[in-house]
Formats: sequence, structure tokens, C-alpha cells
Amino acid sequence: MAHQDARWMRAAIALSLRGKGRTAPNPNVGCIIVRDGVVVGRGWTQPGGRPHAEAITIAQAADRAQGATAYVTLEPCFHLSPRGPRCVDVLSRAGVRRVAIALRDPDPRTDGQSIAWLREHGVAVDVGVLEDEARAAMAGFLLRQTSGRPFVTLKLGLSLDGCIAMADGSSRWITGPIARAHAHLERTRHEAILVGRGTWWADAPKLDVRLPGLEDRSPRRIMLGHGDAPDGWDLLSEPAGIAALPGVEYLLVEGGAQAAAAFLRADLVDRLLLYRAPILLGGGKPALGDVGLADLAQAHGRWALADSRMLGEDRMEVYLRTRSH
Amino acid sequence: MAHQDARWMRAAIALSLRGKGRTAPNPNVGCIIVRDGVVVGRGWTQPGGRPHAEAITIAQAADRAQGATAYVTLEPCFHLSPRGPRCVDVLSRAGVRRVAIALRDPDPRTDGQSIAWLREHGVAVDVGVLEDEARAAMAGFLLRQTSGRPFVTLKLGLSLDGCIAMADGSSRWITGPIARAHAHLERTRHEAILVGRGTWWADAPKLDVRLPGLEDRSPRRIMLGHGDAPDGWDLLSEPAGIAALPGVEYLLVEGGAQAAAAFLRADLVDRLLLYRAPILLGGGKPALGDVGLADLAQAHGRWALADSRMLGEDRMEVYLRTRSH
Repeated sequence: MAHQDARWMRAAIALSLRGKGRTAPNPNVGCIIVRDGVVVGRGWTQPGGRPHAEAITIAQAADRAQGATAYVTLEPCFHLSPRGPRCVDVLSRAGVRRVAIALRDPDPRTDGQSIAWLREHGVAVDVGVLEDEARAAMAGFLLRQTSGRPFVTLKLGLSLDGCIAMADGSSRWITGPIARAHAHLERTRHEAILVGRGTWWADAPKLDVRLPGLEDRSPRRIMLGHGDAPDGWDLLSEPAGIAALPGVEYLLVEGGAQAAAAFLRADLVDRLLLYRAPILLGGGKPALGDVGLADLAQAHGRWALADSRMLGEDRMEVYLRTRSH
Repeated sequence: MAHQDARWMRAAIALSLRGKGRTAPNPNVGCIIVRDGVVVGRGWTQPGGRPHAEAITIAQAADRAQGATAYVTLEPCFHLSPRGPRCVDVLSRAGVRRVAIALRDPDPRTDGQSIAWLREHGVAVDVGVLEDEARAAMAGFLLRQTSGRPFVTLKLGLSLDGCIAMADGSSRWITGPIARAHAHLERTRHEAILVGRGTWWADAPKLDVRLPGLEDRSPRRIMLGHGDAPDGWDLLSEPAGIAALPGVEYLLVEGGAQAAAAFLRADLVDRLLLYRAPILLGGGKPALGDVGLADLAQAHGRWALADSRMLGEDRMEVYLRTRSH
């Protein structure tokens, strides 16, 4: 049973990632409904945060939800909203017999109340199924709840010797087409992208998504710096300002070296996304400015490898921060 | 049969690597003798280049070499030497019925003559079994023959952002103990290690092998620079000088950034050996000085990933040059 639960919850988590970077201020939840070993509904929170994953999934399952088990990556919402029904009612009315939940919702409007309510109404509830995986899949929402800021990914496209451009500033291209397409896919999973003023002046980056069919997924653009922002851009004077960005659960910092270093100095990077090309640029522009280390020992123990794969001739690596906030 | 040949030759190549960096001016050859599917002898060229792999293997096999097949990673030597018997005679006298050879010896004193001689004397000969693998295993000897210089490995111990030290020069430690032990093992596979004068002044590196039981495998030390060499060191005024280094088939360049860049500018690096620690040093010392690229396109197509593995928390990567000499 536990093995089957993990299997279905894993599918629900995979669905939840389809909403990543599009559901703020709501969490990107995934849901799957299973009856007699057969999936009768699957859904994820839609862009803008509504409908919720559970509502979509129940609508899909219809009568087949009777007596079924619902797998939800986050505790269903308990609070009434003008934007839609609350999910505990949706699940209960559909006749679901059991709800498996990966993670209790820290939002004080829910925070365990749905779990208690469902049990009171005769629905079996299991909490904690693949909790860590679900936590990772909704890191942006959770960080907003616990630390009041978005989850920050720092992306770097590098040579083997850690350069992000030639000495003359040219950087087209360091990585190959597969890695660049992957970087565009990463953009779709973030509500906003940030670059420093220097990078904006030097490269005039569009920061849009140029993948066929995903052009409408281009994130908001934010410049780190002072003065006026270009048309269509927001301005942030310092990294700590990300806490005040409305509707952003996932922020992608795309450079340059000074903006990246500013976020690292402020200890506001949660994830490193590296694309490394098999080239040496010797004497080029270094990836990072001063990150404010007092000594070498301080640099250790901060990052743990979470993913590594080849993208054409380039290697993508993902590191996650290991220290708690 | 072809499948079995590849299997035994692979074993012979593995044996050949035991002599890597110790057999100059001779090649690091491996040999294995098989009769009725059973290994009856195995050997590799000994330090200083004698005895040859074949002589050791035949001595081990003794009578059991009668009618057996010998797998040799390089064509047996044809020339008479005061330092030992020639290997064609050794193999023939032992009664070997067949010799499988990975690679014809480019040395003009042999260069196909042993192959012809063995066939004339009734020994079956197959040439080209795992030729590419054998070529890679004896790259130092072969490069000496074809280009008159040793095979050069450039080693870099790096942070994720490509720094080899903090801004103040401190670099102990960037990589962890497992990666550092591996780097010492790499030293044993090179006849000589080179560092630039700046690195010598800054770090006073011993460049010795501090692995239990391998202390006597410390390579010769060479400084790149002008003026006087420290006691026990050789001096080289420019990278091209490596051609004149006697008894060196494998050279390890261990830094610093300027020495590394000088070898890259001179197009004298055959292999990159990277140890990357999961740390960011932002604003530290870059791995390489100017390597003389005219544009970014020039940086591409030079290196191909040949090996990649985790050593504790660090990743080792090996890249080989893709262009011909």
C-alpha cells in the first residue's frame, strides 16, 4: 500500500511541476485520483492560481471519484474564496473515500484544518506521503510562506574555466543550442527574470521564451540597479527587494557577474543552475564578482549537487543550498 | 574469436597502464599470454623501460607459452640492444603460436619488421586489436615518436566559478581529500611535473607523491620561467622546451594560471584534468591567464569529454584534445 501511495504521489508531483512559475500567489499543486488501481482524474493548479488542482481533477473524474483515493501534493484548501470553491468541499462532495496528502499547508487559513475536517466527515486521510519531494516541487510557495520571499535560482552559462564572456564581452555563444533551449524552458518555470543594469546595457537581453508554443510563457523582467527601468521592466534597487515582488514565487537571476554576486552576498540564492561548455576562454570575464567570503573554509558546505546531465556537448548541473534559511 | 581477442587485449592494456609515466624512453607496453582460455603469463614494461613486457610475461609462462597466444599492446621490438633480448626472438623461442598486436610500433627500428619476421617464422599475427585504446594508453610514447614531445596534461583544481584560489591567494583547500589523493595518484603516472615561477614563489609546492607506498613515485620537478631553478628543480624558459626534456613521455602541468595559459597558447595541452569543488569563490583568482583567442568560435571544437566521476563531493572531469597535431 505504501509503495502504491508513493507511486501515485510521484505522478501527482510530476503534474504539479506543470504549474511551476505560473500559479502565484497560489501553490503549484498536483492531484491524481485513483479507483481500483486506475487513474480516473489528473490535474494541476492553473495559471494565476485557479482553478485549483483538486477542482480540475474531480471534474475530470466525475462519478468515478466515488469511493476513490485522491493524491494531493498539498493539503486541500480550507478557506472560502470568491474565486472558487474550497477544495475540502469539492473532495467530500465527490465521494472520495481517502485523501493522501504529501504536505500540510502552512497557510494559516488552512494549516491542518482541512485534514481535521475531512476526518470528521468520514474521509480517511494520510499525511506525509513523499513529503520531501513535494516540498522541493513547491519550494517557491513554501518559501513565500516561511520567509516572505521567492525561491531564487542563479543561472550561469560558463566555460570550463568559469568565464561567462570573452574579455571583450562577447558571449554568443558559449553553450550549444540544446543547453540554450533548456535555459529557455527554465524561464517558463519562473514568474520573473532579473539581470543587472550592466548586463542590460551590454546585451539588451529580451529574456523571452523562444520555444515554439511557449512564447506566451515569457516571465516578467526585472532590472537590478538604480535610476529608470527600461519600458516593460521593473526595477529593484537591491536583492532584498525581491520580498516585495508581488506574484513571484520563482525568480531567475540570469546575470551578470555583479548581480549574481550581490544575490550571493545577500545569501539569497537557493539553487544554482550551471550550463558548462567544453571550452576554455582563459582571460575572459569571470562568472562572479566578490561574494564577500572571509576565508576559504566559509565557501564549503553550502551547495549540494542535485542534478547533472549532458545537454549536447554541454553539461547542466543543479546545486541546491544545503543550509537552512 | 574477435570478441575473445578484445577481452584479452583489454586486460593487456590495463596492465600497460601500470607502467605509465615510468618507462621512458621506452613505451609502456602490456602483455598477456593465453593458452586454452587460461592466462599463463602477464606483464608490463618495468621502470626505466626494461625488462620489456614480453620478456616478463614469457618468463612467467615458461613452458606453458608453447602453442599459446600472446596479446601485446605494441608490436614487439625488432632491434638488438645491449640492455636485453629483442622481443621477437623471445616470443618465437618460447613457442608462441599466435601474436595479437594492438598497434604497429612507429619506431623506425621496428615499424612492421617484427610483424613480417614472425609471419616468416610461422607465427600467426593479427594487428589492430583495440588499436585506439592501446594508442590512448601509450599516448606519451607515441607523441614522442610522431611529434618529438611528451604528452601534456593540464591539471586544474577549481571552484564552480572557475577560481583556483581566493583573491588573497589562499587555495588550501578547494577540493576535498579524495580528489587530492587522486591528484597524487595522477602524479605517479607522469615522469615530470611543471609549475610556473609565480606558483613556486607563492606556494613552494613539493609536488611529491604523498600516498602510502608510492612515495618513491614522485616525478621530476620543472619550473617554467627565467633565472635560477631551485635546488632539485629543472628550468624551462618556454613551453616549447618540453621537446628537449630527456626521459619524459608524460608531463603534468599543475599551474598556475599563467603557466597553464602559456601551454594553451602554445597549443601544447593534450588532456585537461579538472577537479571541481561544489563551492563558489566569486572574485577569486581565475584558473587561466589569456590563452590568445581571437574570437569565441575559436574556443569551440577543441575538447571532448573522456571521463567524468565524483570523488567525494568533487567532480573529476577529463577532456582530451579533439584536433590532430
